[in-house]
Amino acid sequence: MPSNVTRKVLENHLVEGRLLPGEEIAVRIDHTLLQDATGTMAMLEFEALGLEKVRTQLAAQYVDHNLLQTDFKNADDHRYLQTACARYGIHFSRPGNGISHQVHLENFGRPGLTMLGADSHTPAAAGLSMLAMGAGGLDVALAMAGRAYYLPCPEVLGVKLVGKLPDWVSAKDIILEMLRRYDVKGCLGKVVEYYGPGVATLSVEDRAVIGNMGTELGATSSIFPSDDQTRAYLQSQARGDVWVELQADPGSTYDAYDEIDLSTLEPLIACPSSPGKVVTVREVAGIPVDQVIVGSSANSGLKDLLRVVRIVDGRHSAAHTDFHINPGSRQVLENVAEADGILPLMLAGAKIHQSGCLGCIGMGQAPGTGQVSLRTFPRNFPGRSGTRDDQVYLCSPETAAAAALHGRITDPRDLGLDMPYPRIEEPKQRVVDRSSIVYPNAEDTAAEVLRGPNIKPFPQLDALPENLRVTVAIKVGDNISTDGIMPAGNQVLPLRSNIEAISAYVFYQLDPDFPARCRELGAAAVVAGDNYGQGSSREHAALAPRYLGVRLKLAKSFARIHKANLCNFGILPLTFKNPADYDRLTEGAVLEIDGVRQRIERGDTEIPVRVNGTELLAVLSVSERQRACLLAGGTLNLVRKELG
Amino acid sequence: MPSNVTRKVLENHLVEGRLLPGEEIAVRIDHTLLQDATGTMAMLEFEALGLEKVRTQLAAQYVDHNLLQTDFKNADDHRYLQTACARYGIHFSRPGNGISHQVHLENFGRPGLTMLGADSHTPAAAGLSMLAMGAGGLDVALAMAGRAYYLPCPEVLGVKLVGKLPDWVSAKDIILEMLRRYDVKGCLGKVVEYYGPGVATLSVEDRAVIGNMGTELGATSSIFPSDDQTRAYLQSQARGDVWVELQADPGSTYDAYDEIDLSTLEPLIACPSSPGKVVTVREVAGIPVDQVIVGSSANSGLKDLLRVVRIVDGRHSAAHTDFHINPGSRQVLENVAEADGILPLMLAGAKIHQSGCLGCIGMGQAPGTGQVSLRTFPRNFPGRSGTRDDQVYLCSPETAAAAALHGRITDPRDLGLDMPYPRIEEPKQRVVDRSSIVYPNAEDTAAEVLRGPNIKPFPQLDALPENLRVTVAIKVGDNISTDGIMPAGNQVLPLRSNIEAISAYVFYQLDPDFPARCRELGAAAVVAGDNYGQGSSREHAALAPRYLGVRLKLAKSFARIHKANLCNFGILPLTFKNPADYDRLTEGAVLEIDGVRQRIERGDTEIPVRVNGTELLAVLSVSERQRACLLAGGTLNLVRKELG
Repeated sequence: MPSNVTRKVLENHLVEGRLLPGEEIAVRIDHTLLQDATGTMAMLEFEALGLEKVRTQLAAQYVDHNLLQTDFKNADDHRYLQTACARYGIHFSRPGNGISHQVHLENFGRPGLTMLGADSHTPAAAGLSMLAMGAGGLDVALAMAGRAYYLPCPEVLGVKLVGKLPDWVSAKDIILEMLRRYDVKGCLGKVVEYYGPGVATLSVEDRAVIGNMGTELGATSSIFPSDDQTRAYLQSQARGDVWVELQADPGSTYDAYDEIDLSTLEPLIACPSSPGKVVTVREVAGIPVDQVIVGSSANSGLKDLLRVVRIVDGRHSAAHTDFHINPGSRQVLENVAEADGILPLMLAGAKIHQSGCLGCIGMGQAPGTGQVSLRTFPRNFPGRSGTRDDQVYLCSPETAAAAALHGRITDPRDLGLDMPYPRIEEPKQRVVDRSSIVYPNAEDTAAEVLRGPNIKPFPQLDALPENLRVTVAIKVGDNISTDGIMPAGNQVLPLRSNIEAISAYVFYQLDPDFPARCRELGAAAVVAGDNYGQGSSREHAALAPRYLGVRLKLAKSFARIHKANLCNFGILPLTFKNPADYDRLTEGAVLEIDGVRQRIERGDTEIPVRVNGTELLAVLSVSERQRACLLAGGTLNLVRKELG
Repeated sequence: MPSNVTRKVLENHLVEGRLLPGEEIAVRIDHTLLQDATGTMAMLEFEALGLEKVRTQLAAQYVDHNLLQTDFKNADDHRYLQTACARYGIHFSRPGNGISHQVHLENFGRPGLTMLGADSHTPAAAGLSMLAMGAGGLDVALAMAGRAYYLPCPEVLGVKLVGKLPDWVSAKDIILEMLRRYDVKGCLGKVVEYYGPGVATLSVEDRAVIGNMGTELGATSSIFPSDDQTRAYLQSQARGDVWVELQADPGSTYDAYDEIDLSTLEPLIACPSSPGKVVTVREVAGIPVDQVIVGSSANSGLKDLLRVVRIVDGRHSAAHTDFHINPGSRQVLENVAEADGILPLMLAGAKIHQSGCLGCIGMGQAPGTGQVSLRTFPRNFPGRSGTRDDQVYLCSPETAAAAALHGRITDPRDLGLDMPYPRIEEPKQRVVDRSSIVYPNAEDTAAEVLRGPNIKPFPQLDALPENLRVTVAIKVGDNISTDGIMPAGNQVLPLRSNIEAISAYVFYQLDPDFPARCRELGAAAVVAGDNYGQGSSREHAALAPRYLGVRLKLAKSFARIHKANLCNFGILPLTFKNPADYDRLTEGAVLEIDGVRQRIERGDTEIPVRVNGTELLAVLSVSERQRACLLAGGTLNLVRKELG
């Protein structure tokens, strides 16, 4: 049976399950990617498994998120990650070397492989025809231990590209067109596979823009074929030897279809504050712009930056418009320097920053009150810039450059009145600089792992006891988010590698005495209403309560990811069989489940809970694997046992 | 009578007083310099004077300190400053254009002029033979209004330079030698004037390094003659027309003398955590180095950076050493680009940042726990980096580059084994880029000043009433610092332009109810022990209590600067005639001074204070000018009245 590209990669990596959309499958992971925001906890989790070395083909750790060092913590994290990489055989990309996705393309990406990354934009590797997916830190830590990754088998949406982009329209406009069509949830559970004659007109870095922002469609991943563009890119990186062709078989089919005629696209822009609020640039032209930022993980490529160089060369940014360049990688900027592009950028008023995520994750570059910011970034969620009520637009480098020069949102085609569209030839051979990557070395097994005072080992979690007796330490209502459970923000986030310290902030807004009460109780429970644990996927909202002694959460319903996290960290996620029982429970009530291990082992879905001399029925709806995790006291305990 | 350079400049600008060391003099100010950390309050103070335009020859506002934008506040401040500059006729240097001192040299500095800057390193303009002094924001605001600057006439220390620097030794080592000799208080009340044949061997930017760090000696200012080096520099900046010669007259004398034979100097380094803890690099060689930063307001010049380029060209920074470049100005980096210096720096692993103060004032680049950082910065006070117990060393660019390459403190002369010392020719014509300076325009009088929600006008302060009746709102002990009165830190500092908001933190550590109590009382007093108001010179420690209603501080003794600030903001600084009276006062006591205006007007130094039916004698020891300020309710009120 002829296969599309997605199916080929999945078939080659299938460990468990059948390739039927929606069925759970397990796939072998070739590469793993960590960055420094998610990386310290994932690394601590990996360390907790007790392995000597990573077990993937290649594991890479990037430092690109927390480049802002206002005290010792981020620098300590970087040093921890660097020494842990040496110890466990992981490639370490030094701070300032660039954004994970771009640096991975340059140095490690290979067509046809799978990658799991603790970063939602990991699918940028679609540009090199990898099936790359974002996941939580623990999933990536398990992949580093050589474990397969479990996911529902995705549908494949085939998007046929025909025609050729007009002048002043580029890859960003293609993915914005997809967002215009599908909005931010339209591709949930899907891999978006691009095919057709238009594909050959896009460079690897163009494709990476589209793969990166496929995440904003809600897609599991995106993928492109591997072709002559792929080969040329790898050759320009002095890695032509790793190229393989990867094309959909003639006659292969997709689960769903769409088509974009590239020649009909025009410059598009995502308005505040969603990547899905896409309109034509023409529709919002004229709005004054206070800040323009080119670069980031989307539009991190060389051609994108060189086009901006040519557009602003000999011109100057408007007096009221702050013009930033966030290079995707050190190497990209080196190639701009090689092409004599630095001086024109600077003379145009651009501020060139070290390579990293920077303002895209609110690490600086926050706009002022009421200011409009145009960014080539992948995301513009409300407040993500660091400024509440921010006005952030997402656009192509061409549109960004036009706004920098005119100080207003400007259709870049208007620039065409004064100048030809700068068509950039991809260099046959780039400046290749791998000197800021620290390669692992077999002799480093004994390397010392340096932990700053804020970096604590992953805590020991004990297995589920035979019988459970816990006291309700808090009772909360409906729609409690993970922010409500485990706040983020400047005060709390820097404690991410220190579970003891961060656990002091559990339920900080709702009930600051919760941690102290839990520690007194020893074994505690949380009672909650509907949709408990919605919002961010942060693992700490499960791990920190568990650290405090929470063994059981009894809710009317759970948000999907939080429930998975509860299983991962050994907290029983029970729901009320009869939601009215919620009203019978109060803080201080003692809940008892006799023979809880036995019940879980034998697959019971209904679990009787004794409370105040009476009984209520709770429901446990989890997979076989999750049952095993719960019994072990958490996934790490289980996997550690399995690894022997 | 033959004059030295300092005396010539003072004579040319003398408005009041006689040039006798220690006597109060008033000098006319030609240029003013503001940066964005001190600038918003100084600008608000200037605005409170109600003038249409600034009245100095040239006023410049730089944005170099608060480039870290993690929320709206800094961006709002920048926009406020930019629009206020347009309104009042001030040159505005945009964020990222560079550090005030370097940009002022490049674009505005002129031999023989005076400058007052709200930044302690303002004496960097010594490099262009200006008599430039640092001062508080209000003093600079008054200078912008055309008022003279009052100071005790300085002594002049003449330092004769002879000989020529050896290879691998540079300007930083000269000022480190001065610090080795005089430590951080050895030049209090002095202007350090350099003369002799060695002066001609130093470029303007070399001299700026020495002038900049003269501040660390405690000096009022430093100065160099204006000579052929000065002319060549100004010509290279396309400003040769403003050059004038300025030399000490033959036979002129100094109040004190010293001499440095440049040929005998060797690489020096200031150890943690004082610029005065100077040793030879040889003595501390071998210590592992985690971070190296080249640039900042000291060593911001082109030659410094180009020497580093040549040293690291074809080599790479050590794997454990983070290597940063903080260019002194946009233009300096443009000239590095013009000299093809960017690519070698990047290939050596350097992270190149936008121009600004950055880590020098703890805005990023904080080292990790226990890490050693070598910086070409002017200061290494404890914790200034953002990391408590930091290990920051100060050194020359050569020493910094050697450490970056070797990963350990290394005498740069050791590099001489592999390479010749890179002697850099100053370019005859630099890339000159004034495009990021917004020049004032006479038509902008009606320009709107944009204030973010955190920027409030300078508060109205009323004049001193005829009779004073105040209640003691707090009684504190000895040695209360301005930090104790008005805390700094992340929570409070961003409120610097909002007196109402920041006043809620007055005495926050000692008594958080103080602000509420003051507001209830209406008119309040503070009773204190010895050395009240020591530490930082921050004006807010006087202004914010005044805003809350404090009219009188009665202490055993005051720290000098805080007492001056109290007069500036209209709070009576009284001391006990009999210190034992301190014990008679309690919180809640009512203090009354009848005819207080009359007493101050007629110059009384002893003021009777009625308290609880008895009387105590207080002492008012202030200048005539300060009496007038107190009567007016603050200096701004007085000057506003004088300006009509």
